[in-house]
Amino acid sequence: MSKPTKNTSALNEQAGIEQPDALSKSAAQKLQEARKKKHSVKELLHGILNGNVTALSRGITLIESTATKHQEKAKALVEACLPHSNNSIRVGITGVPGVGKSTFIEQYGNLLTTKGHKVAVLAVDPSSSLSKGSILGDKTRMESLVTNEKAFIRPSASGDSLGGVARKTREAIILCEAAGFTYIIIETVGVGQSETAVHSMTDFFLLLKLAGAGDELQGIKRGIMEMADAIVINKADGENIRAAKIAKVEFNRALHLYPPKSNGWIAKTLTCSALNNEGVEEVDTVIADFVSEMKESNHFASKRNEQQKFWLLQTIESRLKSDFYNDEKISAELEKQLILLSENKTTPFAAAALLLELS
Amino acid sequence: MSKPTKNTSALNEQAGIEQPDALSKSAAQKLQEARKKKHSVKELLHGILNGNVTALSRGITLIESTATKHQEKAKALVEACLPHSNNSIRVGITGVPGVGKSTFIEQYGNLLTTKGHKVAVLAVDPSSSLSKGSILGDKTRMESLVTNEKAFIRPSASGDSLGGVARKTREAIILCEAAGFTYIIIETVGVGQSETAVHSMTDFFLLLKLAGAGDELQGIKRGIMEMADAIVINKADGENIRAAKIAKVEFNRALHLYPPKSNGWIAKTLTCSALNNEGVEEVDTVIADFVSEMKESNHFASKRNEQQKFWLLQTIESRLKSDFYNDEKISAELEKQLILLSENKTTPFAAAALLLELS
Repeated sequence: MSKPTKNTSALNEQAGIEQPDALSKSAAQKLQEARKKKHSVKELLHGILNGNVTALSRGITLIESTATKHQEKAKALVEACLPHSNNSIRVGITGVPGVGKSTFIEQYGNLLTTKGHKVAVLAVDPSSSLSKGSILGDKTRMESLVTNEKAFIRPSASGDSLGGVARKTREAIILCEAAGFTYIIIETVGVGQSETAVHSMTDFFLLLKLAGAGDELQGIKRGIMEMADAIVINKADGENIRAAKIAKVEFNRALHLYPPKSNGWIAKTLTCSALNNEGVEEVDTVIADFVSEMKESNHFASKRNEQQKFWLLQTIESRLKSDFYNDEKISAELEKQLILLSENKTTPFAAAALLLELS
Repeated sequence: MSKPTKNTSALNEQAGIEQPDALSKSAAQKLQEARKKKHSVKELLHGILNGNVTALSRGITLIESTATKHQEKAKALVEACLPHSNNSIRVGITGVPGVGKSTFIEQYGNLLTTKGHKVAVLAVDPSSSLSKGSILGDKTRMESLVTNEKAFIRPSASGDSLGGVARKTREAIILCEAAGFTYIIIETVGVGQSETAVHSMTDFFLLLKLAGAGDELQGIKRGIMEMADAIVINKADGENIRAAKIAKVEFNRALHLYPPKSNGWIAKTLTCSALNNEGVEEVDTVIADFVSEMKESNHFASKRNEQQKFWLLQTIESRLKSDFYNDEKISAELEKQLILLSENKTTPFAAAALLLELS
């Protein structure tokens, strides 16, 4: 045994063994945080699976958050909800501002709840981040649906790209389905490609129109007619009834100019007055018929499967492109090549080869 | 001076300095090949610029070759032709087999040559590599145009992808223009996306149709009507005249259902009998009107510029995708993820993130 060479006086404090304060604290903290995090996702999941709307709202907020730690939690939550999802009817609704989308959705949503359904209303509006919510921002427009206990209304997620907004909405659908909502209505005003995005995440796509001066078909955006499973002419009331009926015939004729859909469904045209709650029941019947027909022919499941694949490839390809074009060297060279192209001094293929070599 | 220690006898041969045989030979060969190559592209270019059809044919064969050394020469040739290109009218023509494309092109082509034009006929047929040339493989179908000195007919390039065929055709256009052809007609049967490809490389897009049982609009592929600058109902002769006139009205009405084109052009409908050479002059007038209108409004040049940009981005993006999906690790994982997706065990976004991390 070696003799102590220092601190021979009893008054001197011995250093003793080092206290593992820091280590222990950090470990405890980590443990706590992990528990808290786990508990929190678990808590949200529990709430959502029990149909708790507050938990559902908080879950969707998590999905919409751009913070990394929220995104991790959101990912865990979505994955935990997945086995409980996929069991609703997803209805996409589009129409220009003023066509009466809110009123229609309110009547249709309330109707569905009287039939025992739980209805979630989401929106895809890539412009909402700029205009601070151009649709569904004001829940007062669906007064009675807002207070309906079987309904859940959520404004559009904001985002700098349609892809981002669409992704958040698709994940919100999963949460809503896990929360027991049997009808998911996705509304869009049709900015840019948002109709295509909504069409690619819904089972049934409804185009809401107004009767116009007889030549209103001209105003329809390219491709929309082909996506529609039904065209509903709204505000068919009072003096508008006759015009609405004429429009119905015209739209019906126009729809027949398109090749038949591969699922065998022939797009329907209907008139309604959402304001007077007339004709909404008929729309519901058409959608219910569609669903039972598609489920019988197995097109319902195969379409959803196709949609999943579409979003997978879409996500990959948009990342590949953004990674490429956001590269500084490449974007600088691209500008040069575009000028050379416009001056007929290179070919698209030579320019592409040159740009690809930079990546 | 050192005395020779060996070979002291005069009968012994001295080694002398080493002959640089090998080096000299290889250098000479390289020089020769370089000259030959340079000469060859130069020769082809010279021939093409002088309107020599044999040189043009050989140039296009070079473009179509998959051999690396040919591709290098082709690239040099296309680049050398570029300053002499871009000065023709490019007309895309589509229609199902049996509609009378060959007969129509023959009459239209011959008409153009009587007006002093030189006409090149190319084709985009991605199926031709499988079916060994389903269109234009048999030049006997355009007997009189084949022997017309002011016309040049070339069957579709073969290739395993539409992208490859389209690229070769676009480069062939450059060579034809450099050879002084003032009208380039690009024919397609419309396999897969080939109409879109032809539409993206031509100034005017013509849809050739037949009069049917009154409901023939149903048979039109999605998107074709919107691309057409004119719909020509062929075989309007004998007992078909009445049906053709009815079809013309019907197509005209259908065309008006589409939103107006951004260039202000309103698609025209016409009838013709290519067989009897009736109505072809009217088609020529419509195309000429279109060209002068578009040149006046500057849409002609801006559309070509847009097309160049389209092909540049298209080429880049298809390479980005093929590089990604052809990766063995990625394609194996993609298959797994698609199965998980179909079983609802992952989301498209989680799967995409996982796959992107592999690249």
